[in-house]
Amino acid sequence: MRYYAQPLSQLIGQLSKLPGVGPKTAQRLAFHILEMDQDEAKVLAKSISEIKEKLSYCSICNNLTQNDPCYICSDDRRDKNLICVIEEVKDIIAMEKTGEYKGLYHVLHGAISPIDGVGPEDIKIKELLSRLDDETSEVILATDPNVEGEATAMYISKLLKPLGIKVTRIAHGLPVGGDLEYADEVTLSKALEGRREI
Amino acid sequence: MRYYAQPLSQLIGQLSKLPGVGPKTAQRLAFHILEMDQDEAKVLAKSISEIKEKLSYCSICNNLTQNDPCYICSDDRRDKNLICVIEEVKDIIAMEKTGEYKGLYHVLHGAISPIDGVGPEDIKIKELLSRLDDETSEVILATDPNVEGEATAMYISKLLKPLGIKVTRIAHGLPVGGDLEYADEVTLSKALEGRREI
Repeated sequence: MRYYAQPLSQLIGQLSKLPGVGPKTAQRLAFHILEMDQDEAKVLAKSISEIKEKLSYCSICNNLTQNDPCYICSDDRRDKNLICVIEEVKDIIAMEKTGEYKGLYHVLHGAISPIDGVGPEDIKIKELLSRLDDETSEVILATDPNVEGEATAMYISKLLKPLGIKVTRIAHGLPVGGDLEYADEVTLSKALEGRREI
Repeated sequence: MRYYAQPLSQLIGQLSKLPGVGPKTAQRLAFHILEMDQDEAKVLAKSISEIKEKLSYCSICNNLTQNDPCYICSDDRRDKNLICVIEEVKDIIAMEKTGEYKGLYHVLHGAISPIDGVGPEDIKIKELLSRLDDETSEVILATDPNVEGEATAMYISKLLKPLGIKVTRIAHGLPVGGDLEYADEVTLSKALEGRREI
């Protein structure tokens, strides 16, 4: 039984396929779109339909970009000999927001996860190796601090060490603003292990 | 400072204008759209851009519809002499889901609310009056059970009573499955007031 006019129920159906959008939210969004300015709705629609065509992956670091190479790889002020390896494009944003990192990135587009059938050949490790040269001063492994991220970091470090390249892993420890009382045992033991003289 | 490629940050910006969608959700949605099948993204975009063009208001009941009159007004099996007055198009769905109501609707597209500057002439009361004729057996006022809805129901009933038309208001009382202990005073006193012999 249908209650809404066909175009409306169709839009609700499509919106409810989006992650985190249930039928009620989809209905609210659809009514909002219906009440939007016609031009505004067209602009939104255009962005959605063109996003895939307009974006591609940077041939150097695999970042999403409109121009190749991406704005980070083509920025002359950045240290081209320092490479930070991350899992996803979103992680670049997290790193950039710190304002601390001035090197380049390498997006793996995943992490090694045998349980999900993702092996080293399924992520951009080969591409990382071909980027490295004698000039490379350091490779920072900033994969996620979970089982898959650790395994990936371990795998890459074992590949790079014999080449004589400095490989580092971002620190594990207590999050700033956190509470010792609520820290889990693994994080706490990593924090202890990584203690430094002050 | 921009972190994402322009088409992506543009899409994120537009998505975050939607109700209940913050920057983080907008980012998640944008990445999901990016990973969607190209055809699927096009269909979603088309639905968004065409929704306004394809839909209009039913000339009889003001429901949103693709064809005029709407599927409810043009359904011969429904009682054309029974009109249920509601505030929003969404309320039709709520009523239809009960499966109990077999009459027609009249969508006011709002409720009288002097504080928001909405007077009787700003909602579809005039259109309701022009729909009524000698055949009309009953007008059910199903506006929301809040101050604005009550005021609107009161206003309409005062207009219709002199015309000799039967006007009813949906019952106030305890919601089914509710708990007496947690009912608010107003609802409970309305429930007492509306008690019926069994």
